[in-house]
Amino acid sequence: MRAIRIREPGGPEVLQLTDVPEPPLTAASVRIRVRWAGVNRADLLQRMGFYPAPPGAPVDVPGLEYAGEVLEVAAGVTRLAPGDRVFGVVSGGGYAEQVVVHEREAARIPEGVDLREAAAIPEAFATAWDALIARGGLVPGERVLIHAAGSGVGTAAIQLARALGCEVTGTSRTASKLTAARDLGLTQGVLSRDLDAMRGELERLAPEGYDVIVDLVGGAMVAEDVRLAASRGRIVLVGLTAGLRSDIDLARLLSRRVTLVGTVLRSRPLEEKILVARELERTIGRWLGEGRLRAVIDRTFPLAEAPAAHRLLAADETFGKVLLEIG
Amino acid sequence: MRAIRIREPGGPEVLQLTDVPEPPLTAASVRIRVRWAGVNRADLLQRMGFYPAPPGAPVDVPGLEYAGEVLEVAAGVTRLAPGDRVFGVVSGGGYAEQVVVHEREAARIPEGVDLREAAAIPEAFATAWDALIARGGLVPGERVLIHAAGSGVGTAAIQLARALGCEVTGTSRTASKLTAARDLGLTQGVLSRDLDAMRGELERLAPEGYDVIVDLVGGAMVAEDVRLAASRGRIVLVGLTAGLRSDIDLARLLSRRVTLVGTVLRSRPLEEKILVARELERTIGRWLGEGRLRAVIDRTFPLAEAPAAHRLLAADETFGKVLLEIG
Repeated sequence: MRAIRIREPGGPEVLQLTDVPEPPLTAASVRIRVRWAGVNRADLLQRMGFYPAPPGAPVDVPGLEYAGEVLEVAAGVTRLAPGDRVFGVVSGGGYAEQVVVHEREAARIPEGVDLREAAAIPEAFATAWDALIARGGLVPGERVLIHAAGSGVGTAAIQLARALGCEVTGTSRTASKLTAARDLGLTQGVLSRDLDAMRGELERLAPEGYDVIVDLVGGAMVAEDVRLAASRGRIVLVGLTAGLRSDIDLARLLSRRVTLVGTVLRSRPLEEKILVARELERTIGRWLGEGRLRAVIDRTFPLAEAPAAHRLLAADETFGKVLLEIG
Repeated sequence: MRAIRIREPGGPEVLQLTDVPEPPLTAASVRIRVRWAGVNRADLLQRMGFYPAPPGAPVDVPGLEYAGEVLEVAAGVTRLAPGDRVFGVVSGGGYAEQVVVHEREAARIPEGVDLREAAAIPEAFATAWDALIARGGLVPGERVLIHAAGSGVGTAAIQLARALGCEVTGTSRTASKLTAARDLGLTQGVLSRDLDAMRGELERLAPEGYDVIVDLVGGAMVAEDVRLAASRGRIVLVGLTAGLRSDIDLARLLSRRVTLVGTVLRSRPLEEKILVARELERTIGRWLGEGRLRAVIDRTFPLAEAPAAHRLLAADETFGKVLLEIG
């Protein structure tokens, strides 16, 4: 089958369209013909050699999410049949014509949602769900702050928080992304290029602080999060584009009883991947089918142009998802 | 009534035994004759002017926990009657002959537990319960690490974690405290004077990390906690004797999905104070009555010697609690 391989650690040019063996169909699994694959920042890190694939995932084929049709099912599989339209997250191997996953790891795509839209959903919405609800314990009416509101996860988190009846403030380094995020339900947007100015504005908007903060930026932003969190606030760290360390005010964390928690989907064990798939089907997929949530796609590329897709994502100018069409 | 007042911010000598008005009996409240009061590090901070009393608490009478008898109840109070033996946490005012609390804020002392022992329980065990179970989500069989294992909260946390069937590793700057902690069920003790040596030993004892870390130390220790936490580990920060800031490895926090959460009892609203009292009665008090838990008392002082009690606690040489006898 055709797939994108990482020839060696390096720049976008090391992504090579090539033929690789089809993955074997293992027990309790289904073989899926991938039509669209999402591109994620983790793929860029993996390409550069900073984020090796977890055990069991293909070592040199990136790709953490897909949408496609079931081609074949292992003996005893009853949940899915050939032809079913499915989407989901994988630990790697998404930039390829086929993936093999446990039958319970794949979620059905709701009627009326096409495969292109579906491929924009798994990582962004499962991560946003995990951050806001599972890790953040978001309750309707609470105040939400999202850093990097224009990212794939950011645009998903805005929609989920609004669907729960929460006010959502978002930050971005780019004014046009904040404008675009308003169409998704963002209540207020604040520029984050100058942290002091950003903090002042965020404090003015929510003098008692933010109940749940989803941070896709990391680094020095986490110290700001600790200052901006409400009493019993939860800071969920999802990304580290701005840095790997932060100097934290522990007295504030303690006196306001703030929680700081990190989360990541890729390295999870099967049982947790299955839980993600169930959430994709039960809530996210249903809301998507009902039009309460929508895919936010910045741009799509043919599989062969994966290097261009990586360059675009690295430029930090996208709003929502970048996808690869595998056809 | 007699009480210890903070004359002005300063050293132990500003604690003055004096006469103050009895607190008024408010609606739904009970008046308690305090026999014993616990001394806590927060009292030392309050005395120095670094930790003002929260709204509603006496501004200049310290004391966060008591044991005594009900003297008088407000109209309509049915849970308690004069003569009942009770203990609990308060937001301040414990160094006095009387406190007035909501009837649901006071917990009954189990039979067979004397008032002196009872006074050693509320802050230490409620904080340890909150840290291990409410905030830490400790599950039987998980691995626990406690920094400052010889402190009041530390000795309580060792006992609670053991009662839940967990292995408990503790650290202390003093070898004799680790020896004493073994009698309470500590599985392993590690000296914490040299952080590099401590980390090496703790990693050797638990190569996969610790599931719940109760940190009464703070400062640079929190950065160690992030390195020592297991995948999905919870670090509960309860004290800051070693410093108010920490430079944290966010990549580790994220990739291992670690939670860092601060907690403090003193400033909580009534409804949460009531929950603490219910836990004191329902579980901690019952286990105390059954001998599954025990009060750990280092030394007691008459109320008038509160300055000496503060000096002793500040010297960091106590094992367990320091109490004031009010008589």
